[in-house]
Amino acid sequence: MATKADIRTLFEPESVAVIGASGDPGKIGHSILKNIIDGGYRGEVFPVNPRGGVILGLNAYQRIEDIGRRIDLATIVIPAKNVPEAVKSCAGCGVKHVQIITSGFSEAGNREAETEIARTAQAAGMRVLGPNIFGLYSSNASLNATFSATEISPGPVAILTQSGALGIAMIGKTAVDNIGLSAVVSLGNKSDIDESDLLDYLMLHEPTRVVLLYIEGVKNGAALVRTLKRATALKPVVVIKSGRSRRGAMAAASHTGSLAGSDDVFDAIMRQCGVLRAESVEEAFNWCKFLAFNPAPAGNRTVIVTNGGGIGVMASDACEKYGIGLFDDQETLKKTFEPVTPAFGSVRNPVDLTGGAGSNDYRDALMAAAASNSMDATIALYCETASFDSENLGPMISETAAAHVSARKPIAFAAIGGNAVESVISRLKKQNVPVFGDVYAAVSCLGAANRQSAGIKEGAENVEEALIDVPEINRIIGGALAEGRSFLLAHESAGILHAAGVRAPRSVIARSIREAIDAAESIGYPVVMKIVSRNVLHKSDAGGVALDILSNEEVIDAYEAIMKNVREYKPGAVIDGIEVCSMARPGTEIIIGSRIDPSFGPIVMCGLGGIYVEVMKDVAFRALPISLNEADSMIREIRSFPLLLGVRGEKRKDIEWVIDTIIRVGTIIMKCDMITDIEINPVVVYDQGDGGMAVDARIIIAKTREDLK
Amino acid sequence: MATKADIRTLFEPESVAVIGASGDPGKIGHSILKNIIDGGYRGEVFPVNPRGGVILGLNAYQRIEDIGRRIDLATIVIPAKNVPEAVKSCAGCGVKHVQIITSGFSEAGNREAETEIARTAQAAGMRVLGPNIFGLYSSNASLNATFSATEISPGPVAILTQSGALGIAMIGKTAVDNIGLSAVVSLGNKSDIDESDLLDYLMLHEPTRVVLLYIEGVKNGAALVRTLKRATALKPVVVIKSGRSRRGAMAAASHTGSLAGSDDVFDAIMRQCGVLRAESVEEAFNWCKFLAFNPAPAGNRTVIVTNGGGIGVMASDACEKYGIGLFDDQETLKKTFEPVTPAFGSVRNPVDLTGGAGSNDYRDALMAAAASNSMDATIALYCETASFDSENLGPMISETAAAHVSARKPIAFAAIGGNAVESVISRLKKQNVPVFGDVYAAVSCLGAANRQSAGIKEGAENVEEALIDVPEINRIIGGALAEGRSFLLAHESAGILHAAGVRAPRSVIARSIREAIDAAESIGYPVVMKIVSRNVLHKSDAGGVALDILSNEEVIDAYEAIMKNVREYKPGAVIDGIEVCSMARPGTEIIIGSRIDPSFGPIVMCGLGGIYVEVMKDVAFRALPISLNEADSMIREIRSFPLLLGVRGEKRKDIEWVIDTIIRVGTIIMKCDMITDIEINPVVVYDQGDGGMAVDARIIIAKTREDLK
Repeated sequence: MATKADIRTLFEPESVAVIGASGDPGKIGHSILKNIIDGGYRGEVFPVNPRGGVILGLNAYQRIEDIGRRIDLATIVIPAKNVPEAVKSCAGCGVKHVQIITSGFSEAGNREAETEIARTAQAAGMRVLGPNIFGLYSSNASLNATFSATEISPGPVAILTQSGALGIAMIGKTAVDNIGLSAVVSLGNKSDIDESDLLDYLMLHEPTRVVLLYIEGVKNGAALVRTLKRATALKPVVVIKSGRSRRGAMAAASHTGSLAGSDDVFDAIMRQCGVLRAESVEEAFNWCKFLAFNPAPAGNRTVIVTNGGGIGVMASDACEKYGIGLFDDQETLKKTFEPVTPAFGSVRNPVDLTGGAGSNDYRDALMAAAASNSMDATIALYCETASFDSENLGPMISETAAAHVSARKPIAFAAIGGNAVESVISRLKKQNVPVFGDVYAAVSCLGAANRQSAGIKEGAENVEEALIDVPEINRIIGGALAEGRSFLLAHESAGILHAAGVRAPRSVIARSIREAIDAAESIGYPVVMKIVSRNVLHKSDAGGVALDILSNEEVIDAYEAIMKNVREYKPGAVIDGIEVCSMARPGTEIIIGSRIDPSFGPIVMCGLGGIYVEVMKDVAFRALPISLNEADSMIREIRSFPLLLGVRGEKRKDIEWVIDTIIRVGTIIMKCDMITDIEINPVVVYDQGDGGMAVDARIIIAKTREDLK
Repeated sequence: MATKADIRTLFEPESVAVIGASGDPGKIGHSILKNIIDGGYRGEVFPVNPRGGVILGLNAYQRIEDIGRRIDLATIVIPAKNVPEAVKSCAGCGVKHVQIITSGFSEAGNREAETEIARTAQAAGMRVLGPNIFGLYSSNASLNATFSATEISPGPVAILTQSGALGIAMIGKTAVDNIGLSAVVSLGNKSDIDESDLLDYLMLHEPTRVVLLYIEGVKNGAALVRTLKRATALKPVVVIKSGRSRRGAMAAASHTGSLAGSDDVFDAIMRQCGVLRAESVEEAFNWCKFLAFNPAPAGNRTVIVTNGGGIGVMASDACEKYGIGLFDDQETLKKTFEPVTPAFGSVRNPVDLTGGAGSNDYRDALMAAAASNSMDATIALYCETASFDSENLGPMISETAAAHVSARKPIAFAAIGGNAVESVISRLKKQNVPVFGDVYAAVSCLGAANRQSAGIKEGAENVEEALIDVPEINRIIGGALAEGRSFLLAHESAGILHAAGVRAPRSVIARSIREAIDAAESIGYPVVMKIVSRNVLHKSDAGGVALDILSNEEVIDAYEAIMKNVREYKPGAVIDGIEVCSMARPGTEIIIGSRIDPSFGPIVMCGLGGIYVEVMKDVAFRALPISLNEADSMIREIRSFPLLLGVRGEKRKDIEWVIDTIIRVGTIIMKCDMITDIEINPVVVYDQGDGGMAVDARIIIAKTREDLK
């Protein structure tokens, strides 16, 4: 297999060919060639068309082989049935990248052709973008190799989109919002190149200040997680993923996870990676623009300046919603704003300049905020008033916005009023000044900037892996596989947890009363006894469980009773024995699990245990491997986390033990290839220092490598 | 006390006086008079100014008494210190309404003057709007008696606002959005006239199709609840209330409830009243406009028509968020849309016309949706494409929107694209066609329309009151008051619950072993025994509790042990006896409570019981009185409601008993004036038909009427 071509040449090709270039203005092969020429591409352009001739003033080649020059990027825009052949020709000529505009491949059920194309390309080290895409734009090369967008302004935002229709529409919207673009890539079916490949380039691409991803489904999630973690440490990555809801997921024909919809997993992992997930296109665009043109906040100490109490309260609400901390040092607030606040105003935060404030009052207050060393960011609110010198609204905003940029602090303005205010807003928006017609839109942007800064601050972290006894685990799995089982029996699961260093009740299968007594004595009283039989699924219903057994006598009684009950309940049941295990003393019940996610590979989960995990869906997810910090933040994300801190006078629980157990359960799924699913429910957690106990574990193994997909 | 003036004359005055009218264009008394004249007011206008003369072409009177004509509305705009005197003059002259523009009253700590004004007016039957307001606009009378808004277009939306600054800014924004107004009222300090008074008029006011409320705090909530319930059955009421968040509530200096922030109570009660609560000004305006100009949906069967899969999925997500049901009958979808959908499209919902769709394809599909008897509402999505005949986008939207109006069905459009699309959107918006630049904004409006229709459908309901033994309850309260207590002892609380027909453990205070045995025998085993002593707060810590007592012998042992333990634990403690009560068998634990809310008066609460109520805050509220339906919807609102339906193979719990208990606990707080707070935690609920048990109740009483405020 050849070395892969560098993705850099996809964005900065020195020569491009258009296979299927056409002189007919109604054809896509015409639009693409025209856009390349009109867009001012600086490299060489080679139209390819079997009929040859001159197309848009350029000599067309009949075959790509005829060009006889190095081709960095070939655009293929011919009928689907001819594409595989064209790809072969490209591979043969040493083309670095092909982008296949043509549709009618895996999205229409035609997987074979797509696989063939990918294989051909891979063997030659050639990369493939698409098929089923609208093309590629790169500001570095002044290359507009799309069939749709006629004019794209260069700028700081890169868009990677899986949806063609929405992608084209979004490019249009960037023109409306005056958001310049550094790159646009239509990903289509992702037969080869995916978001990770492109992010690898864009995260180091200087002109790109923000990356916007539109994702419908994740294919190679583990690689995406690694790439996103690196990318978000360097620049903001905003993602829109539709299919949030059950109905949306159905519409997207995507899969839902077993415990929670897979969107919960996606959402959690994006947060883990420091990605900013927007709900709507509008929100995503607001964020991208704000992040591209405004300094990052150094901290979370924000001040609100307003001329109306009501709108100030509204902004405080929005700050809480978007995780923005309000600066609270009354003395500093007073010192900073008293000199610039009218007598009836308030120098608490929100700072209220009162309805009588004019542009100079605003200027003074906002300059004071910009100059303060104690505040990191400013929210400025304006309700239109009769007393305000409205001709100065625009200049005041521009001036104080510039002062904030100089002070390396973000500011977000929200102004509400009539047509005069509206025209100031729309004029300043075009100049990329962060002014909005709605409080929530303004605060949401600052929230995104805050999350970005906080994410970067956490910095690089070492992921953790526990020392676990993999050979012992594989031995236990081997035993089950030898019996043709894809699930483990309770004592096997407990054995795996022991091998991974997770405390679980000790468990022995006894096949006689003697063995049961020996087991109970060696485990230590109290013990629990349970029937082991592949024919008895509901052990309690069968009278097959005895709790709280305290002595040898009680072991004898329980053994006999269980045997009698089960034989009556299910005559002829094959009885493998009676499990004797130690009884966990009560504590706070949680759930910990890990599994192979179809999108993201190994992931880990924890939540509130017992009956509530099903009803309240109060669980958190992370992609593996994780750092101690990530395990910690995962636990804190659970709504019922206060139960672990201790409520109603209870002591703090052993959170450190929980973190350690999460790492261990995650390590099992990472290290033991055959295990696909671990769910420990309940895990009982004791007071700080006392650890906990994995009471009941369900472990599923893949019978063959094929099961792992 | 005189009969109150009819609020109708506030909105339709035949004569207005401006007390403090001024010829100086810098004065508010000038602006108001000018706005009244320029606004084309059809009644008589009388400027009042001690200096007399001619103001804006009208003869000014030196004193209101000099006018000698009936005055329906006097606007007072003179210094605060002179206002009480002016109000007295108005009252003396038989003025129907005064609106006091002047500030400097209760909002600045000056409560006395405000109370005096209210008293003067009340005695004369005169109504007072304000003080601290920007004025009043009424389209019926062509009356613009505000000092700020120079030009207001008449239309279908009424705005009632507690915030002056935001109110003025919002009027400006109505001009930008081309939303005509039927009325604007600035409420200010609400010394007399409040939202309820105004809604009484506006709900029957034909030109008003939607009412928008901006509220900062609720004063007379019980009346507001009654009025809102009637109003929302007639027309949509949209509310914005800031102070949602803890921080916002702090900023608003408002109170937070004990268990949950009072905003949770507000939010729940608004939902109970059928009010549509918007988060932001932008959302509220979108809703008002949509509701004013579009038919109400007859049901919740919505169809999405799109030309892009991704945006269709996004709209499905938004539908789930906003409670919109997607029409799902595949056969009908196929029959309706197959004739108008291209070959590669999808006739599932979302109906995908594919990226190749032109305006005719959209027209056909949307007309089919409008004509269908099976679908109630339509969402139309458009991603800009090169193949679309963009000059026809606007006409297509206008035409299909009109067809939906004719078919009495709402439609919401979302279009994403470049400047051409943007200009279509902004042109159509001005014509009140429901087209948006963002999917979520469009769907949010349809969601509001859906909730409004669903609310009306529920129709009028009879509120329920339980038959309870009020004299017995008052007797128990009297006993506690006689001992100077504002809290009730356990057996007293149980007695009150019994008197209200709520099953609670029977409880007797025994003062000897003999009494304890008698009590246990009459209650029936098993029983619980607990120390009763004002000196022992933590009974368990003192060894003062014995559970699961099964026989007379165990009563004797427990009595002696408790006495011994307590005497050792706290020598000299005054022991009132030992409480003997029946022991509730285990079941699903919930919490039920009721209390006098400072804003809304009597309210009732229920939620998931045990430790989780504190951590998860999973509770629901309603203002009392409530109907059976309201009690039912309240329980279903709790996130953990599935626990009552039975999970993990458990049986359905006795939900009817819970509803009955909620009604009873609500009736206690309504009927028994001295009780301010009831919290029963836990209430144990058994399987359907088996009822439940109010295990532990905490009841607080007001020592005097003053405590009740």
